[in-house]
Amino acid sequence: MDQRLTIITIGVEDLKAMTTFYETAFGWKTLSSSNEQISFFKLNGILLSLYPKEDLALDAEVSSEGSGFNGFAMAFNVNSIQEVNELFEDLKQKGVQIIKPPQNAFWGGYSGYVCDIEGNLWEIAYNPFLNLDESGNVTD
Amino acid sequence: MDQRLTIITIGVEDLKAMTTFYETAFGWKTLSSSNEQISFFKLNGILLSLYPKEDLALDAEVSSEGSGFNGFAMAFNVNSIQEVNELFEDLKQKGVQIIKPPQNAFWGGYSGYVCDIEGNLWEIAYNPFLNLDESGNVTD
Repeated sequence: MDQRLTIITIGVEDLKAMTTFYETAFGWKTLSSSNEQISFFKLNGILLSLYPKEDLALDAEVSSEGSGFNGFAMAFNVNSIQEVNELFEDLKQKGVQIIKPPQNAFWGGYSGYVCDIEGNLWEIAYNPFLNLDESGNVTD
Repeated sequence: MDQRLTIITIGVEDLKAMTTFYETAFGWKTLSSSNEQISFFKLNGILLSLYPKEDLALDAEVSSEGSGFNGFAMAFNVNSIQEVNELFEDLKQKGVQIIKPPQNAFWGGYSGYVCDIEGNLWEIAYNPFLNLDESGNVTD
C-alpha cells in the first residue's frame, strides 16, 4: 500500500454554506465535478471534499451520531512568521473565526488556529524544520 | 491563500498503538522527525500526523470533549476494481477492520471502507472519473 492518500472528506452540516466559506474566505475554487450533493477542491495532489455528514455516515455504513471535538486538524504552512501574520490578518478581515492567535509554538515554529464555519480546525503555521517546494509540497 | 494543505493531524488516544497500526497494517514508514510525542508519515506532498487528541485540543485551545462519529474520512484510490479487491484482501489478512466490503458505488465507482484501530475511516476506491499520476497525485 503506497504511502499516499487521494481525498480528505469533511462531513458537513450545510454543504452550500461550507462551500461558500471555502470559496470566499480561503478564495478556493471548486472542481467542475462538484454538484449540489458534493464539493471538490483540488489541493496539492489530493482533493478536499465537502459532503453531508449524514450521507458520509450512510455511505460508510456507520452511525452519524457524534458531537464535540472531532479530533482532527489540517495545517496550512507558509514560509515565514510574517506570512503567518499576514494570512491571519487577511482571514480575520474576511470574518474567519480565529481560535488561537499566531504565536511562538513550543515545537520551535510560529502558528495559530482558525476554523471554518462548522468548527473544523486549520492551523496556519511557519515551521522552520519543514521544507516546502514551489507547489507547497513537503520535500523532507 | 494557495489551494493546498501541508499536514493532516489525527488526534489519537494511543499514539504508540496507532503508529504501529499504520506501520504494520498499511506498511508505512514514519519520518525520522517522529518521536514519543508525535508520529509523521510523508504522503504525496503532505504529511499525515498522529498526535494525542488531548494535546491537539490543548494546542488549539479547544475542548477535547467529543464522542461518536468524527465526521471525516480519508480515501486511498487505486486504478482498478481488482486492485480494490486485492487491497481489501491484504488488509483483512492483516487484521484490519472492514467497515463496508467493496462494492459498486452509486457514483459509478467501486469502493469500500476500512478503519484504523481508533475508528478513523479510510475508503479504498476505484473511481473511473479520477485520474492519478504515477505518484498517486490527482491530475484532474
